[in-house]
Amino acid sequence: MRMTRLLVPTVKETPSDAQVISHQLMIRAGLIRKVAAGVYNYLPLGLRSIRKFEAILREELTRSGCQEVLLPTVQPAELWVESGRWQQYGPELLRFKDRKGTDYCYAPTAEEAITALVRDEVKSYRDLPKNLFQIQTKFRDEIRPRFGLMRGREFTMKDGYSFDVDEAGALKTYDEMYDCYNRIFSRCGLKFRPVEADTGNIGGTRSHEFQVLAESGEDAIVACTSCNYAANVEKAEVKAIALEGHDKVQAPVEPRLTPTPGKQSCAEVAAFLGLHPSLTLKSVVYLVDDVLWMVLVPGHRETNEIKVKAAVKGSLIRPAEKEELARAGLVEGYMGPHALPDAVRGKVKILVDRTVAEAGPGERPWVTGGNQAEHHYTGVRYGTHFKGDVVADVLTAGGDDTCGRCGKGKFTAHRGIEVGHVFYLGTKYSAPLKCHHLDEKGVEKPMVMGCYGVGVGRTIAASIEQNHDADGIIWPMALAPYHCVVLPLGPEPELAETAEKIYTQLNALGVETVLDDRNERPGVKFKDADLIGFPIRISVGKKGLKDGNAELKLRASKDVKLVKVEEVAAQARKLVDEALGR
Amino acid sequence: MRMTRLLVPTVKETPSDAQVISHQLMIRAGLIRKVAAGVYNYLPLGLRSIRKFEAILREELTRSGCQEVLLPTVQPAELWVESGRWQQYGPELLRFKDRKGTDYCYAPTAEEAITALVRDEVKSYRDLPKNLFQIQTKFRDEIRPRFGLMRGREFTMKDGYSFDVDEAGALKTYDEMYDCYNRIFSRCGLKFRPVEADTGNIGGTRSHEFQVLAESGEDAIVACTSCNYAANVEKAEVKAIALEGHDKVQAPVEPRLTPTPGKQSCAEVAAFLGLHPSLTLKSVVYLVDDVLWMVLVPGHRETNEIKVKAAVKGSLIRPAEKEELARAGLVEGYMGPHALPDAVRGKVKILVDRTVAEAGPGERPWVTGGNQAEHHYTGVRYGTHFKGDVVADVLTAGGDDTCGRCGKGKFTAHRGIEVGHVFYLGTKYSAPLKCHHLDEKGVEKPMVMGCYGVGVGRTIAASIEQNHDADGIIWPMALAPYHCVVLPLGPEPELAETAEKIYTQLNALGVETVLDDRNERPGVKFKDADLIGFPIRISVGKKGLKDGNAELKLRASKDVKLVKVEEVAAQARKLVDEALGR
Repeated sequence: MRMTRLLVPTVKETPSDAQVISHQLMIRAGLIRKVAAGVYNYLPLGLRSIRKFEAILREELTRSGCQEVLLPTVQPAELWVESGRWQQYGPELLRFKDRKGTDYCYAPTAEEAITALVRDEVKSYRDLPKNLFQIQTKFRDEIRPRFGLMRGREFTMKDGYSFDVDEAGALKTYDEMYDCYNRIFSRCGLKFRPVEADTGNIGGTRSHEFQVLAESGEDAIVACTSCNYAANVEKAEVKAIALEGHDKVQAPVEPRLTPTPGKQSCAEVAAFLGLHPSLTLKSVVYLVDDVLWMVLVPGHRETNEIKVKAAVKGSLIRPAEKEELARAGLVEGYMGPHALPDAVRGKVKILVDRTVAEAGPGERPWVTGGNQAEHHYTGVRYGTHFKGDVVADVLTAGGDDTCGRCGKGKFTAHRGIEVGHVFYLGTKYSAPLKCHHLDEKGVEKPMVMGCYGVGVGRTIAASIEQNHDADGIIWPMALAPYHCVVLPLGPEPELAETAEKIYTQLNALGVETVLDDRNERPGVKFKDADLIGFPIRISVGKKGLKDGNAELKLRASKDVKLVKVEEVAAQARKLVDEALGR
Repeated sequence: MRMTRLLVPTVKETPSDAQVISHQLMIRAGLIRKVAAGVYNYLPLGLRSIRKFEAILREELTRSGCQEVLLPTVQPAELWVESGRWQQYGPELLRFKDRKGTDYCYAPTAEEAITALVRDEVKSYRDLPKNLFQIQTKFRDEIRPRFGLMRGREFTMKDGYSFDVDEAGALKTYDEMYDCYNRIFSRCGLKFRPVEADTGNIGGTRSHEFQVLAESGEDAIVACTSCNYAANVEKAEVKAIALEGHDKVQAPVEPRLTPTPGKQSCAEVAAFLGLHPSLTLKSVVYLVDDVLWMVLVPGHRETNEIKVKAAVKGSLIRPAEKEELARAGLVEGYMGPHALPDAVRGKVKILVDRTVAEAGPGERPWVTGGNQAEHHYTGVRYGTHFKGDVVADVLTAGGDDTCGRCGKGKFTAHRGIEVGHVFYLGTKYSAPLKCHHLDEKGVEKPMVMGCYGVGVGRTIAASIEQNHDADGIIWPMALAPYHCVVLPLGPEPELAETAEKIYTQLNALGVETVLDDRNERPGVKFKDADLIGFPIRISVGKKGLKDGNAELKLRASKDVKLVKVEEVAAQARKLVDEALGR
């Protein structure tokens, strides 16, 4: 393609309303343009990357036995009433009436539509399993659309749904899709991790998020260096954490009440006492289903509500309020498990993080709240001076923690962008929508479902968050809108002719190429080539051409070499093949 | 793909709400399912055909220098207010508010969105021309959605828009797109005609419709057997028509008033007088912008309002009402151009069809209204007894008419389904939306636009309307969801094994194949294969296999032959290659 024919309006200035780098670069490189809040035009280069990703999705899903369908964007309310989501969904669901006054919505997802379809068309165990997907536009009326394609309102999503005769079949399908997603993101050339995740509002009991790793990612995750385990920090199982400072403590020690005037946080108390913060004990009190729980974790770490809720098998959880603490006799800011008056102890249960319970040496003395204003205890030992009603893993995980899954490896901390998820749904939708089949004995049973999503534009944005530098985008070959750009560096006819010749050869070799045939200075062409991020750049300048050479530069490694004009197209082809593993 | 994995719910019964054959067959062959009025699920086979057509569209449009973009389906009202269409569009435009109360619509077309994009991003003549297209879901809230994908509410459309510096450039682009569309529908293997057409509500001054020929088509068109000219019957230029019966008339004749009691229509009068109907003259009076026009055409033909309006350069036209005729002194049912009282003649202008004016022999006598009740004149000659204020081509064209373009060929009549259109838009949108560029002298000028549409699902439906028989669909190879089906005709292991072997070979050769591995009787498999319409059917039966043969049958020609099992895959591949012109 010739640059003069392409619509690729690059801009120098960082757009003022773009907060994240991928949004900035997608605007600046001329990939997208905003139409309304969270609604974008996809320009030719942006759409090419999206179409490439869609092709990878189709190929790998088909390889896994999935079939493509297309469900409508405009869906009748009745479908959503049946599942109960018409009532449950908030204002994110864009609702409207047609000219006859019938209720419809712009589908934000398609569990209802696909379940109704399969219910109506598939009746027997002999026709199962079925695994269907679509690549379709969705709309979610986010209250605060932001970050470009990362959290838009209208967006393209690959959503897939599987239907099996039973749980065993559905879990097998789940595993196949897990493998499929690994192949998909590997082919894209992205660094990513599948992480165990909570199932959130969509429900279900087994769930993995596919996270593209990027410093700017919204999600904090940890991954074990020894086993395959990776999870969101809120879910990751921790075996042990680093606890320092005990080597400087003379054991045994006994509790001593110490004035700590105005010092409430663990960090303040540790600094005041000249101790390592991991020697302090953080006490946070939650109200879980009408029971007050004092939760104790090492002072340098965070308590994790989700884990607390699970540990005490609660359903509703929130931090206790001032009045609730006072009513129970607790002294805010100075709470601790030691020397709690019996009257108070009767109203509060104690949950101890397992790293506290298992902390070595056994004689490790903790600093805890004094249960009176402006005081803390030092020298409080677990087992001797306090115990937990429950001991469990309730920490938010972090880098360097010991993996709770294998018990050996250490966690590394990452930030990630969720680009895909796989969910085991069970009968969450098939039961209410009566999506049944007859089994081998003629007994009617609900089908067992899974659902599988990939954010298409989001993956492109995540690729940019992961791969860019100060000059612009660095595309992995598989997602690059074009593999290569050819730059004639000046108005001289021999430069244009040579560039044209190389361009023709590249096209003949199947290397997707843009010829920058604009009448612009070399500096402008270089800047745009870097900004757009073509993986391979071939420049034809006067100096090199004198010796019959063109310059070949790789965007990612910045490797530069001079190559004979006759050979440069073949070399580019080889680089493309290598990058795509062909 | 194995039939047992495919979601292809064929049905025997013709669905009661499907009136046209393509709709019936798309339901019966399991290609689509209705979700709501005019809103469909596309099942795997239907979607495959659609994706194949989309691939052809992309390839040919790219070959013509077009670039793909994707504009949002949800568009802010402000864009539509700017062009005036927010006010003009009726209830077909699906309007709604987002959670913040801002007005949006589901785009039924994208002139506004693309024009605003190009206005904002392209400034100079150096960046023109631009030719952009998208393949995107549209919504038109039709009051009576019907005929399946032929007139749905939610549908996929390829819409393209070109931007040139001037009219000459825009017309050149128009011609390129005209050629491109010819390539597109040729590659689909469809019988079609590009026909000159009116521009209708979308405006513009040059327009071709691409019509897929089918007896069931909504549009009547004529095509010249000698030149390339083809047009809608309402627009087709007619040079001459067959006028019979004059050989039996003795010339010269003079007007004679004849009683024709109760006979008003030309057919009735001709029958009553024992004359050929083409010897009568049909008088229809229209009110065109406050002027009454008596329009005269041969009695066996229809007057065409659109041509009448153009002939008298009018803007509003309708048949005159009873009272208007009476007020002018005209006698309804017995009007004619001869012997009109002067008082009446002063109030009515006369428009004569050119086939009447040029009818040979010059002495041809016409039967005309008597301008008094229950009477007609015979022997009325053009030039001698009446003249026209205007003479023009005002007939609705028909088969066997002489082509008005080349003046030599005869028209053949066809019925067609409009699947594509190309429009020259001029500055209809660029002027109000201020989509300007600076020309070489730095002068600001509006860009000159064209627009180019293809109904994607509609083309698939039209293909079926054109190509089917009593048993089902007959796919052209290029649009077939799969090229080939392999049927093992029985439960014997050697049949399954041989079918499996052939299936594997076909896949290896790139022949897209379905293996009907269902545990069904041969009759069921044959019926479904015909209904779905796979171009090539390979059956493996006990009898043939004894001699090492499989049966190869072509869906279109019904040719059957026995082929050695080892050779049948290669033969199928050859058939596919031939059909696709590879």
